[in-house]
Amino acid sequence: MSLTIHPINGIPEITEGEDLGALIGEACARNECGLIEGDVLVVTQKIVSKAEGAMADIDPSDPLSHKPIVEREAVRILRRRGDLIITETKHGFICANAGIDLSNVSRGRAALLPEDSDRSARRIVERIRHEQSVSVGVIISDTFGRPWRRGVTDVAIGCAGISAVVDLRGTEDALGRELMVTEVCVADELAAAADLVCGKAEGIPVALIRGVDSSWLRKSSIREEVIRDAADDLFR
Amino acid sequence: MSLTIHPINGIPEITEGEDLGALIGEACARNECGLIEGDVLVVTQKIVSKAEGAMADIDPSDPLSHKPIVEREAVRILRRRGDLIITETKHGFICANAGIDLSNVSRGRAALLPEDSDRSARRIVERIRHEQSVSVGVIISDTFGRPWRRGVTDVAIGCAGISAVVDLRGTEDALGRELMVTEVCVADELAAAADLVCGKAEGIPVALIRGVDSSWLRKSSIREEVIRDAADDLFR
Repeated sequence: MSLTIHPINGIPEITEGEDLGALIGEACARNECGLIEGDVLVVTQKIVSKAEGAMADIDPSDPLSHKPIVEREAVRILRRRGDLIITETKHGFICANAGIDLSNVSRGRAALLPEDSDRSARRIVERIRHEQSVSVGVIISDTFGRPWRRGVTDVAIGCAGISAVVDLRGTEDALGRELMVTEVCVADELAAAADLVCGKAEGIPVALIRGVDSSWLRKSSIREEVIRDAADDLFR
Repeated sequence: MSLTIHPINGIPEITEGEDLGALIGEACARNECGLIEGDVLVVTQKIVSKAEGAMADIDPSDPLSHKPIVEREAVRILRRRGDLIITETKHGFICANAGIDLSNVSRGRAALLPEDSDRSARRIVERIRHEQSVSVGVIISDTFGRPWRRGVTDVAIGCAGISAVVDLRGTEDALGRELMVTEVCVADELAAAADLVCGKAEGIPVALIRGVDSSWLRKSSIREEVIRDAADDLFR
């Protein structure tokens, strides 16, 4: 089964209080990829934060004025080097600067992470189901660095209607041997795939992925399935 | 620009010495996605290791008989917990069990990482250029865990003809502000995207990605662009 990833153009600049689910559904229709059952929408965090008002004011003349907000939003500082702060957020994400960033937001403003990105995803799923009578999966994505490897990639910070992790434990490999441990974080793979068509500079905030394995479409949550407990973690 | 990801079916069980580039090119033609300029092929590590003979014998009756090979292949042990060993390999990868695994290989055998996966990718690029007069990008992918987040994802361990990292520093975001640091590891995002159609259990070892941004097609290397020096790393 092939997979197709479409950038969704024409989503307007988002302001607080806007109905993202309705706007995304309309934009998909205008892009001639009217939503069908089983489509997965990957929505970048920035427009979710804007719609939910998860923003803060900063001094645009001071390049470090967001740092106090980083300290406030972080529940733990894991590492510091120069201006770089690796934080644990209240959601359990490990990322630079508590996920706060200044790109694609107005001068003098900083975008924070949404309060609960799984809930943000659920709201979009429900809105689209209500308006278009179609069940889609939604992933909220953000751009994180990682240790050991250079370059950032997009990962899932929230999801609804699509598995976060698919468990292949106990299924057989192609040679009939039982696979030992293979829990695949398909939500992160979908977020990464979507970033290939979104491109930061072009500011395309949503991608539609069509052709996703239908067995992956179910209730799920990044917080419950992907965030690793500190006690289980070998690198904290 | 939309992206399409096709699983490439019909690649036979691979044995040592086989010409992967030729086999993959033929399989693409049979899948009715004859290769065109700018296509990116994502090839899973297992078939590269098999073709290159990067394999070892183990005692199939002993579930831990690959552990001495892990110790031999690792240049550093970062963490241990029970049977789990997080290693640094000679290539600079940080992964479980020095990248050695037993799924989709014959009983009594273990697959090691290829000696130099960038070179493996270059060979496939060159073979396809020679046979079909078409320039493609090739990524060799493997399945790695990561700290802080549950579930594995596929990442790039080698590449040729396609950027490992795309540098958006200095380009402007959609609001005309200069983006500060955004080096995106598109090779890892492409590897992750390909895994969505490959599916471990079905044993589809190659995916074709069509529609990749043509500015990303260039000489590149995972070793040079993605492996982070230990000195730069905050988590080693």
